[in-house]
Amino acid sequence: METSVQLVVNMALQAWESNLKRASAVFAGLSDEQLMEEVSPGRNRGVYLLGHLVVVHDMMLPLLGIGARNYPHLDTAFISSPDKSVAEIPSVQELREHWATLNTQIHEKFSGLQPEEWLYKHTAVSEEDFAKEPHRNRLNVLLSRTNHLNYHLGQVILIKK
Amino acid sequence: METSVQLVVNMALQAWESNLKRASAVFAGLSDEQLMEEVSPGRNRGVYLLGHLVVVHDMMLPLLGIGARNYPHLDTAFISSPDKSVAEIPSVQELREHWATLNTQIHEKFSGLQPEEWLYKHTAVSEEDFAKEPHRNRLNVLLSRTNHLNYHLGQVILIKK
Repeated sequence: METSVQLVVNMALQAWESNLKRASAVFAGLSDEQLMEEVSPGRNRGVYLLGHLVVVHDMMLPLLGIGARNYPHLDTAFISSPDKSVAEIPSVQELREHWATLNTQIHEKFSGLQPEEWLYKHTAVSEEDFAKEPHRNRLNVLLSRTNHLNYHLGQVILIKK
Repeated sequence: METSVQLVVNMALQAWESNLKRASAVFAGLSDEQLMEEVSPGRNRGVYLLGHLVVVHDMMLPLLGIGARNYPHLDTAFISSPDKSVAEIPSVQELREHWATLNTQIHEKFSGLQPEEWLYKHTAVSEEDFAKEPHRNRLNVLLSRTNHLNYHLGQVILIKK
């Protein structure tokens, strides 16, 4: 019999996986040239949003305490700088590969966590603060990143095919 | 001492409320004229997305079994028809009022539910199916609608001010 925590964690994981799958299908359905287009005039390009999601998801590994970063060298281009301000960014092809590699890696790491481990603290909160604020746990990071993914997915979908 | 279910339900409610607050701020920051603009050329207008969110959130009341619909007459304009295909839609002002009314009403209804009641089945699943698929509960609807809100919020934010 599934406990309530198992049930809820599985719901959150299912939402993450299905939204990630949807995002992968959207990116796969756009050509490299289409991903160089802006989602709306003067706004971010598809390539920037792909890179941004790669970096934000890569950052989840140390934040959840389940692994080291793969692509810290991409932070400048896709987190600390706005789109079209960094001269050299990776090719769309390279970012697509990072996206696929990372999704597989994250899926494996998530599969290795027991449901109750999702309620453990994430690494950006101290033991002391976590004792007072138990919602600052891994599951909250997962819910937040699923919302973040949807926010940008709603933008990428606007690129004309 | 907070149980795990209380903790997780409060996390999901907190995410819903904070994202709703963010959406309200985005809509409030756009004039009626700006909301008549498309989020990207040829795509939905802000007014359509505001109406769409009003209807989808209104539909949560019967789906969660916590109340009757307020605005079923808006389904044609904002759910079953694409933007710019229905001649008569409510004014932006009217939709802003619905949005505010609904947010207050939903907040009150949500506040009346006990944490464990969020794991009860939603009304679109039979008792029989729910016994086999316990994830088809109210909390899953809440997580899903929070993701849906973010998806469209990422679009509304693209309108130029």
